[in-house]
Amino acid sequence: MEKVQTFDDLCLSNLRDIYDSEHQIAKVLPTITDATTSANLKKALVSHQKQTEEHIERLEQVFDLMGQKPTRKSCKATKGLLAEGVQHISEIQKGALLDAALIEDMQKMEHYEIASYGTVRAFTARAGKADVANLLEETLKDAEATDRLLTEIAETIVNREAATKQ
Amino acid sequence: MEKVQTFDDLCLSNLRDIYDSEHQIAKVLPTITDATTSANLKKALVSHQKQTEEHIERLEQVFDLMGQKPTRKSCKATKGLLAEGVQHISEIQKGALLDAALIEDMQKMEHYEIASYGTVRAFTARAGKADVANLLEETLKDAEATDRLLTEIAETIVNREAATKQ
Repeated sequence: MEKVQTFDDLCLSNLRDIYDSEHQIAKVLPTITDATTSANLKKALVSHQKQTEEHIERLEQVFDLMGQKPTRKSCKATKGLLAEGVQHISEIQKGALLDAALIEDMQKMEHYEIASYGTVRAFTARAGKADVANLLEETLKDAEATDRLLTEIAETIVNREAATKQ
Repeated sequence: MEKVQTFDDLCLSNLRDIYDSEHQIAKVLPTITDATTSANLKKALVSHQKQTEEHIERLEQVFDLMGQKPTRKSCKATKGLLAEGVQHISEIQKGALLDAALIEDMQKMEHYEIASYGTVRAFTARAGKADVANLLEETLKDAEATDRLLTEIAETIVNREAATKQ
């Protein structure tokens, strides 16, 4: 078990959690993308995959700025969040209903990132590490933008079609 | 395993997930509240406990409006999210550092609720169930308000003190 005794320890513990989270997402995203049918959704998820790789690299820069090697701390929350997506794939036939469910799962994942990056950005800014906080702010903005894009795809395309499944 | 074949099935599956989530939160919140030291944070969590009970009752109204008995679907994401809070309690001594970590954990939980209620409100509105969507909107607003309050407590009180722990 980790020992968290200083504010720096807490920042690092958070960074290790989100570093693990991003790796988990990168691994599961192709399965989720393959299960979708909406072309717009598939495109958004493929772009999200690339962005996830960028987030991982950005976190490696952050660890470097903190004078630490990047290491992962198993993120139980992400494990649970992604498990819900995988469960939906086994419960629902391919089509608009599954697309709607997977958008929800990905939005939950984005909200996890928003809370995580929001907190660790606030922590590092408070600790006077403006360079680190600025990098984390970039990823936070990406997560907020992805969440908005998924809402738009749900509201303008997917939910409309899913609602016809009665 | 649940069968999700219609848009109504998907709405109900979501409601069962969040109904389970709220019950899990109600069970773990006292442990998290006991572990905090900031008076403002403790007060916010005690009020959140009451609000969680209200959310459970509101969901029971929603199930009733949908002509269904309230049942729970094990929410793996909430299990993982709350496990992170419990892990922090075992990793960090009581004080500002633990308070800061628990605020983060609770904000992650609120963000799960924001994504969940946001989705199921959109689904039920799309399905023409305005009465249900309005009830879910009330809880969504509560979750957003709790998230803002926790940010305020973190930024004005807790993080400031946590940052002195070096």
